[in-house]
Amino acid sequence: MRWWRSLAAAAALLAALAAALALTVAGLRPTRPPLRFRSGGSFKVALFADLHYGEDAWTDWGPAQDAGSDRVMAAVLDAEKPDFVVYLGDLVTANNLPIPNASLYWDRAVSAARGRGIPWAAVFGNHDDMPFEWPPEWFSPDGVPPLRCRPTGSMAASGADQGCSFRGTPRIDLITAEISKNRLSYSSNGPKDLWPGMSNYVLQVLSRSHDDPALLMYFLDSGGGSYTEVLSSAQVKWFQSQSQFLNPNGRIPELIFWHIPSTAYVKVAPKAKSEIRKPCVGSINKEDVAPQAAEWGMMDALAKRPSVKAIFVGHNHGLDWCCPYEKMWLCFARHTGYGGYGNWPKGARIIQISGNPFSTVSWIRMENGTKHSDVTLSP
Amino acid sequence: MRWWRSLAAAAALLAALAAALALTVAGLRPTRPPLRFRSGGSFKVALFADLHYGEDAWTDWGPAQDAGSDRVMAAVLDAEKPDFVVYLGDLVTANNLPIPNASLYWDRAVSAARGRGIPWAAVFGNHDDMPFEWPPEWFSPDGVPPLRCRPTGSMAASGADQGCSFRGTPRIDLITAEISKNRLSYSSNGPKDLWPGMSNYVLQVLSRSHDDPALLMYFLDSGGGSYTEVLSSAQVKWFQSQSQFLNPNGRIPELIFWHIPSTAYVKVAPKAKSEIRKPCVGSINKEDVAPQAAEWGMMDALAKRPSVKAIFVGHNHGLDWCCPYEKMWLCFARHTGYGGYGNWPKGARIIQISGNPFSTVSWIRMENGTKHSDVTLSP
Repeated sequence: MRWWRSLAAAAALLAALAAALALTVAGLRPTRPPLRFRSGGSFKVALFADLHYGEDAWTDWGPAQDAGSDRVMAAVLDAEKPDFVVYLGDLVTANNLPIPNASLYWDRAVSAARGRGIPWAAVFGNHDDMPFEWPPEWFSPDGVPPLRCRPTGSMAASGADQGCSFRGTPRIDLITAEISKNRLSYSSNGPKDLWPGMSNYVLQVLSRSHDDPALLMYFLDSGGGSYTEVLSSAQVKWFQSQSQFLNPNGRIPELIFWHIPSTAYVKVAPKAKSEIRKPCVGSINKEDVAPQAAEWGMMDALAKRPSVKAIFVGHNHGLDWCCPYEKMWLCFARHTGYGGYGNWPKGARIIQISGNPFSTVSWIRMENGTKHSDVTLSP
Repeated sequence: MRWWRSLAAAAALLAALAAALALTVAGLRPTRPPLRFRSGGSFKVALFADLHYGEDAWTDWGPAQDAGSDRVMAAVLDAEKPDFVVYLGDLVTANNLPIPNASLYWDRAVSAARGRGIPWAAVFGNHDDMPFEWPPEWFSPDGVPPLRCRPTGSMAASGADQGCSFRGTPRIDLITAEISKNRLSYSSNGPKDLWPGMSNYVLQVLSRSHDDPALLMYFLDSGGGSYTEVLSSAQVKWFQSQSQFLNPNGRIPELIFWHIPSTAYVKVAPKAKSEIRKPCVGSINKEDVAPQAAEWGMMDALAKRPSVKAIFVGHNHGLDWCCPYEKMWLCFARHTGYGGYGNWPKGARIIQISGNPFSTVSWIRMENGTKHSDVTLSP
């Protein structure tokens, strides 16, 4: 029945066109030069997690914390010289930021990579567009402190302080500002269908010698702040269609990045506040995993693909371990910022991917130059 | 030392001018005709509390609730024919409202009084400008339902749905829309110094026969939603200066209206979920008082003035009692709206003030026409 074959061919062509369209929407950035493995055949990524810029800007404490975060990133980048930086969410603490545009603080976060000419990508954390939380003492006899943003225009006369923004800077404004201003930014606002999630996109890293993709990095918005802390069913479908299109036979290794640990992290976590034992590797285990609100199938979709080697999240400042789950690894980054809760020494998880044969090793580089928690992320 | 006297006189004049200025700022509305006791010497107020318009507008359930709230207000107004209506906060459930302007629902709430030519005033509740809470099922395979507000313009292309507002409609927008459109509205956005609180103002009711004020009604914004649930120290000072200016010798009786019970309500509350016994009067005692986050002195300031007869709040749908506290009464309104939690029958607290000699009686009028919980609010 030859017409069946023609129909099948036409359907395949249509599917390919649709997938190509989806790819464009998904934000594989044709306007940026392709990312490539370096000449030695490796690709090194630094994860900057939970920087929390912009806290308590009306006191001396906040700016001092931000200067600390600048120093951590400088120390890590100078020691490791990575090929790429991933900003793993909570770049800013919007719930602490009365200024009209949190992008000023977001921009300070990405300036560490920009200043060294290192390309980067970012995903959203739950604090990045969180509405302002009013400090209780502002209602005491001390009152509202003088803020940089003062009432202006007609709204000032009518009682509103429109010079300040107390509802957070929307995700779309943060990411649009980043992308439009930075040629080294590989971030994307992702497909409209995944709204209210924004930072959903795929980046491919090409092999040194030819233009075949040798690594796929998936970035997902795990929500929080202005909406629920969750990876949606729509994101699962998007991941499935993207990975099927870009990597149908699973030949290309895949790494996954988002901010809030999934509930699977709870399952593999070392016993709370106890020592981290093999097969897990890490140095701090100081709190319970704070997982997403629901699991709509992302972990099953990932576990089904042997090409998925590891997931990297932030969010829990007191955890920095990697543990195996099914055939992949679930890893925490390391709290990089002086902002945010927790006084554990600051650092950054480093991931070094080798191309041929493929292997992924990871360690944590501290602000003081030390290095620990080496782990090979192989099944 | 005569120059001392001149200085004192000048200072007094300046103080009077400053107070007059403060009065204008505070929103005693010179552009509306004065409120007056009726010819029989009484003034009757209906309290509409917790209407919660606009819930689940993407289903049939929400609009049906709103129709129910319309019916309750119509029944109460037709039975009681009050001189004034107080909308006691939570007119809308902004955390359930994805539409760009919650003022449409706010307007429906006040249309009950407007349609009958009855003047009114409103204070904010914690739900009126609360950011949208994303329903968990919108992240399931069911996805985001079709919303009335669709993506439009450039933001749609970039992934944001700016046709919908998911950050709540700001207090200033809600109250500005109400005041500008309604000559029967006696609401005010209050003095700028009390920001982020908005609905802080005083209304005076004149006696029938001459232009002396015979009753003062103070409206206060007890916060919640976009900021803390609290009456601030600044509001306490404002109340003190206003009451001192308008009613220095305490000759004029004073009633107080805000949304969220103060912690003093917890102290006088009947034992949780038990019968309401004298001296308290009411019909439902189904939950614990949910008080403000802090007490910055408002209750002390009120208790020091024998002219303050009673405070009226909403917020707790399962409470409708009045209990004495110091020399005044602390009263709950009655849940008026079909929106919001709780299936207790709907109604409204009525307050009838008589001028000479002054007395305040109150009762609850139900949707079905019955009347109960008569109480005389005298010390």
